Amino acid sequence: MEKRRYIEGNMISTFKTFGYEEIQTPTFEILELFTEKSGNAIIDEIYTFTDKGGRQLALRPELTAPVIRFYTDKLQMEPKPLKLFYFGNCFRYDRPQKGRYREFRQAGCEIIGADTPEAYAELVAMAYSLLKNVGLNNIQLNIGNLTVINTLFKQLDLSKDKQKQVLPLIDKSQFDEIYSFLQEISIPNENIKTFIDLLQSSDMNKIKELLKDNSTVINELSYMETIFDLLDTAFQINDFQIKLSIVRGLDYYKGLVFEIDAPTLGAEKQICGGGSYELVSVFGGKETPTAGFAIGFDRTILALELENFTFPSIKTEIHIIPVTKDMISNSIEIAQKLRNEGMQTNIDLLQRGVSKSLKYANTKHAEKVIIVGPKELENESVTVRDMKDGNQAVVKIKDIISTLKTNK
Amino acid sequence: MEKRRYIEGNMISTFKTFGYEEIQTPTFEILELFTEKSGNAIIDEIYTFTDKGGRQLALRPELTAPVIRFYTDKLQMEPKPLKLFYFGNCFRYDRPQKGRYREFRQAGCEIIGADTPEAYAELVAMAYSLLKNVGLNNIQLNIGNLTVINTLFKQLDLSKDKQKQVLPLIDKSQFDEIYSFLQEISIPNENIKTFIDLLQSSDMNKIKELLKDNSTVINELSYMETIFDLLDTAFQINDFQIKLSIVRGLDYYKGLVFEIDAPTLGAEKQICGGGSYELVSVFGGKETPTAGFAIGFDRTILALELENFTFPSIKTEIHIIPVTKDMISNSIEIAQKLRNEGMQTNIDLLQRGVSKSLKYANTKHAEKVIIVGPKELENESVTVRDMKDGNQAVVKIKDIISTLKTNK
Repeated sequence: MEKRRYIEGNMISTFKTFGYEEIQTPTFEILELFTEKSGNAIIDEIYTFTDKGGRQLALRPELTAPVIRFYTDKLQMEPKPLKLFYFGNCFRYDRPQKGRYREFRQAGCEIIGADTPEAYAELVAMAYSLLKNVGLNNIQLNIGNLTVINTLFKQLDLSKDKQKQVLPLIDKSQFDEIYSFLQEISIPNENIKTFIDLLQSSDMNKIKELLKDNSTVINELSYMETIFDLLDTAFQINDFQIKLSIVRGLDYYKGLVFEIDAPTLGAEKQICGGGSYELVSVFGGKETPTAGFAIGFDRTILALELENFTFPSIKTEIHIIPVTKDMISNSIEIAQKLRNEGMQTNIDLLQRGVSKSLKYANTKHAEKVIIVGPKELENESVTVRDMKDGNQAVVKIKDIISTLKTNK
Repeated sequence: MEKRRYIEGNMISTFKTFGYEEIQTPTFEILELFTEKSGNAIIDEIYTFTDKGGRQLALRPELTAPVIRFYTDKLQMEPKPLKLFYFGNCFRYDRPQKGRYREFRQAGCEIIGADTPEAYAELVAMAYSLLKNVGLNNIQLNIGNLTVINTLFKQLDLSKDKQKQVLPLIDKSQFDEIYSFLQEISIPNENIKTFIDLLQSSDMNKIKELLKDNSTVINELSYMETIFDLLDTAFQINDFQIKLSIVRGLDYYKGLVFEIDAPTLGAEKQICGGGSYELVSVFGGKETPTAGFAIGFDRTILALELENFTFPSIKTEIHIIPVTKDMISNSIEIAQKLRNEGMQTNIDLLQRGVSKSLKYANTKHAEKVIIVGPKELENESVTVRDMKDGNQAVVKIKDIISTLKTNK
């Protein structure tokens, strides 16, 4: 929890510096929300149940659909753009993976009502900043475009069905398998070669050259170039790669897509994914541009751990030991004084001896121990012990706060 | 969310000053966990479903059972006492009330392994402090004891069945109804009178006098008196009342129970409830003393609103307007500088004119607007507009941070 709180607090700060505002939606939604977005196949992967009122519900598998549902229901009249961020637990009934449990925590955001290059450059830059700001050193930002991929599919004359078969291969960069598959369904060798060249290339000039005959794609690529320029010159992020093989799992994305990997994680290295999509009209709202991303919380923690990141440590600042029962009330009074100063203060609650209580203080990583004994108390004093070096000093109770504050 | 974040942050600080550590448990649990604790009747009030593996699950209706399950499974060997706090969403399938929805947020804590008077005085004092520290002025702390009530039931020779019928009446302080009910089942009038006198009395001396023949109760009352003394003298909380009619809804409480009301809320005024209970052995662990409490998050917000509490306000600190498209990149660079200083910075993302963008800045409660125009930019300057008084000044870009910081 200390790690989660650290990451959440850090991410909230970053979201807010970018002018995003926090939102929260319910843990469960009507099942239809997710099947409308992702098709019926998703039912196999989610927790779904019928409530006592006969409604078919689902524990949310992700947070974009709930946020856009909320926007469509309640926020359509708000001034645009709306920039919303959120944290929430999501649920998938699939095989647990490393850093991906059946219940998992996500951070994410949506921008609603703006699709200028500066809006999307800001979105990508924010995703990158969120992960850099929590302390990750080794991340890789990859940017793709689904409009380009879709146009290529059209050029290859691939049916929806065939597209669905080839998409997972593209997603996993299995280029040999893509080659065999496209050959099998009689796509001319030359076209296959160009297609795979494009998927593998991260050189914008080469991509533009290969696609120079298609005006839709050329427009889209020049829009992408504006985003890249802003990332590079204005946001000073230049370690990203073009990667047209990013296809994302979901049908509703279009245009810009991006992913951020933490290569230290090995095979399951993706910690952020997002892009622009069309969903408001699916839920019956007035179509408006939408984009967003999600960050996996648990994988982010794993990646930080693998980079040996120093998380804030768990500690008790002060542990107070009443030597006898008669000192309990005075000990509590001292504890309350320290608590009012915001110090994390434990007091022995088991009336055990000093040595046993010191041992407990040690397991709780207490920084200082205050021993309240009868003799010192007569002089309105207590013993303060530094748990690092074992040094002890008798301190007047009225000076206790200033002593603890200066001796940190 | 701003209100929730404020309350959560404030409560975390208070929990930590009392030496409590944060814990989190899953959103759903095996249904049995809750029926073992609260009986089968609870099934009617909770969200329960069968997962794809045939397990009977339930969305947690409360957080004590999950935390004690976690303790029993994983934490039994930890040094005692364990002081755990948590925040979590819970779910009940009952009629939504004011400040009590089907999904609701709770704050709470458990102390495991200590039942000294100082442990329980600290627990009650912390509950009180949590609510005072978030800013509530008008709260009422009531303290009861279920061992006393149970002994009284025995004296009246009430069967479990009859107890169950009378408990809701006691809970609602319906004394006339209690009278009629006990009369109907032939309890002698004098005993009924004493019983109701006890339920209504908040005078410890009177209670002791009425119960002086029962040694179990007298021991329990003297234990309670030690708690009261510590609350009064050491914790300096003296506005609490003895209220033996506190019965809590649940079977597993014993000994100390307490509730905190926010009288401003009217009929549904309870915002905190807790006490000591036996649950570890129910889940197969080695019996150890346990106590805790829960605070209703949404009712706490409602109570603060009714007291006209001033929550932290939602605002954007800075809104930046590029006058033309050519100024976008420079504007982003300025935005990034401010964000690196932790300032909440929006930038116009829709390439709209200055006046439209100023209007948007207004709806977002922006404190300052920075207008990046071509002429000023030539002199490496921008215009800074104070949104409160409308004053504008031309400022060098290199001085922008110091200007904004001093002009707050």
